[in-house]
Amino acid sequence: MRVPSGLIQFIHGNDNFLIATHINPEADALGSSIALYSALVRLGKKAVVFSRDSVPAAYRFLPHSGVVTDVIPSRIDTMLLLDCNSPQRAGLEGREIGKAAVIDHHKTVRDFGDIKWIVPDAPATGLMVYYLIQELGAEIDADTASNIYAAVVTDTGFFKFSNTTFECMRVASELVRKGANPTFIAEKLLNNYSKGRFFLLKEVLNGVKLYGGIAVAVITDEMFGSTGTSSEDTENFVNFPLMMDDIKVSALIRQTDKDSWKVSLRSKGDIDISEIAAAFDGGGHRNAAGYKVDATLAETEECLLKKLKEVVS
Amino acid sequence: MRVPSGLIQFIHGNDNFLIATHINPEADALGSSIALYSALVRLGKKAVVFSRDSVPAAYRFLPHSGVVTDVIPSRIDTMLLLDCNSPQRAGLEGREIGKAAVIDHHKTVRDFGDIKWIVPDAPATGLMVYYLIQELGAEIDADTASNIYAAVVTDTGFFKFSNTTFECMRVASELVRKGANPTFIAEKLLNNYSKGRFFLLKEVLNGVKLYGGIAVAVITDEMFGSTGTSSEDTENFVNFPLMMDDIKVSALIRQTDKDSWKVSLRSKGDIDISEIAAAFDGGGHRNAAGYKVDATLAETEECLLKKLKEVVS
Repeated sequence: MRVPSGLIQFIHGNDNFLIATHINPEADALGSSIALYSALVRLGKKAVVFSRDSVPAAYRFLPHSGVVTDVIPSRIDTMLLLDCNSPQRAGLEGREIGKAAVIDHHKTVRDFGDIKWIVPDAPATGLMVYYLIQELGAEIDADTASNIYAAVVTDTGFFKFSNTTFECMRVASELVRKGANPTFIAEKLLNNYSKGRFFLLKEVLNGVKLYGGIAVAVITDEMFGSTGTSSEDTENFVNFPLMMDDIKVSALIRQTDKDSWKVSLRSKGDIDISEIAAAFDGGGHRNAAGYKVDATLAETEECLLKKLKEVVS
Repeated sequence: MRVPSGLIQFIHGNDNFLIATHINPEADALGSSIALYSALVRLGKKAVVFSRDSVPAAYRFLPHSGVVTDVIPSRIDTMLLLDCNSPQRAGLEGREIGKAAVIDHHKTVRDFGDIKWIVPDAPATGLMVYYLIQELGAEIDADTASNIYAAVVTDTGFFKFSNTTFECMRVASELVRKGANPTFIAEKLLNNYSKGRFFLLKEVLNGVKLYGGIAVAVITDEMFGSTGTSSEDTENFVNFPLMMDDIKVSALIRQTDKDSWKVSLRSKGDIDISEIAAAFDGGGHRNAAGYKVDATLAETEECLLKKLKEVVS
C-alpha cells in the first residue's frame, strides 16, 4: 500500500494535530487513532485524540486509551480524520476546521479534506495507519501493535470477511511478533459480554424472523430495559443469523427513541447492502452497512424488507 | 518447527501409506490428512486416507475430501497416524499394524508408533503437516493450502485461542497467498448452520445454567429430535457461554444413548481442563478437552460440577 507523499509532508510539516474519528467508535476507529497518536508523539509532535463518544467500556483495554478525550477543542488548526471522511461523522459539524487530512477506507465518500487518502479496498484503517507509521519512520512498539491488531481483526471479522487479504494477515503476524497478543485482544473484543448482554442475545435470537434468505431481528427499548443493557451491547448481534447457510442478508433494527430506529445490515458474498443503506441516507461497505430512520417499527420493517427482497432472491 | 529426520526417511523409504486420523474428525484431522495425501501422491507414492466416521457433511467442502474412505483396509503395512496418537482414537483397535509414524499435537500421549512426532505446543497438526510437506520437497498448491488453512483456523479458533503464534499466522498468510480463501473457508466452517441447527443453538443457549464462573449446557436426544439435528450439529456450541466475561469454564453435555453422555469442556486462560477430562478417562488440550460417561444426566452433571468447582474459583 502506497502512502501519498502529500500526507507524509502534511504530517512532517505540522506540529500540533487533532486526531478525530467517527461517532460510536469501534476498535478500528479507536485503535487506528491511538496508534497514530503514539507514533506522532514519538516523532516529537503534539496530538490530541478526539472521539465524541469517548471510549466505550469495551475498548478501554486498548493501550493508552486514556489519551482519548470527548472534549471538543476550541480551535481545530490541523486535523487528521480517521476511519470516516466528513466532520459530521466525527460529531464536528459546524466547527471551523483549518487544514485537514482524511485517512479512511469507507466506500461512501463526502467531499472534505485538503488531503484525502481513501482506500476502499483497505481491510481496515488500522492497516493504512500501519503503513503510514512505517513511512513516517516511527517505531511500532507492542502497544501500537496491539492497537493496530485490534483495528484489523475488528474490521476483518477476525480474518473472516471478504476483505481479508494475504497482506493484512502478513501484517497481523508482524504485529503479533511485535507484541500484540491475539488471545488477549480476542478475549477483550469478543468475550466481553455481561450476563445482561448474554440474556439480550438470547432474546434477540429467539425473536429472529426469517423471510427466505433474509433474517430480521428487533431490539426494543423494553428489551434493553429488562436486561439492563444499551445500544453498545448489540455489537456483532447482526452477524448471528448469518450462521445459517441459506441466510444471505441479516438486519438488526434497534430502537434509539420512541419512533426512531437504527438499522444494521450485513450480507454475504456479492450482495451489496451499502447501496440499500445509502438509499436510506446511510452508508458503509458492501457487506456491512447501516442507517437511521424516524418511523414506526412496522414502517421501518416494511420499507427495509421491500428493499432487501430486491437484492436477495 | 523441526521435522524429525526419521520421519522424512520413513516417508521417503516407503511407497504405500495408510493415513489415518481420529474418530469424529474435524477440519484439523481431515485437512491435515488430505493435505499430506496430496503431497504423497505428488511425490509418486500411493496413499489411502482412512476416517472411521468418513467426512461429515460440514467438511465436504475441503478440496479432495472425496479421497477419504471409511473402509478399513485388510492390511495396514505402513501407517501415518495424524492428529491423534493411538489406534483406538482412530477406530483401529485390535487391527494388526505394521510400521507406524505418529504426527500429533495432543497433550495426552499413548505409547504407540515407531516414530512419534508429537509437539503439544504446535497450534494444529495442519501446521506440522505444512512443514513436513515442505521438508519432503512437495509443492503446496491452492487445494493443499486450503486444507491446511482449514486445519489451522479450526484448531486456533480463527487465531483466537492461546495457541495462536506469530509463526502460525505467518504460515496462514502464506497459505492465503498460495490460494486458500479465508472467507470461503470461514463461511463453510462457521456459517454452515441448517435452520434446525440454529433452533438447537437457541434452545441450548436458553438452557445454559450458570454456577459462578462455570456454565453448563445440556442437549438431550429429545432436543436433537425436535430440531432434526444430530451430534455433528453441536460443534462450537460449547464456546458460546464463554462470551460472558466472568465465565471461565464452559461444559456441554450431550446425550449419546439412554444413560450415555459426551462432555465437551472449554476454558479460558490458565485453567487446565485437560486434567479434568483425563480424570474421566478423556483427553485434550489445556483449554479444550472432553470425555464420555455412562451414567444418568443428574450423576453426570454432579460429578462434573464437583470437579470443575475445584479448578474455578
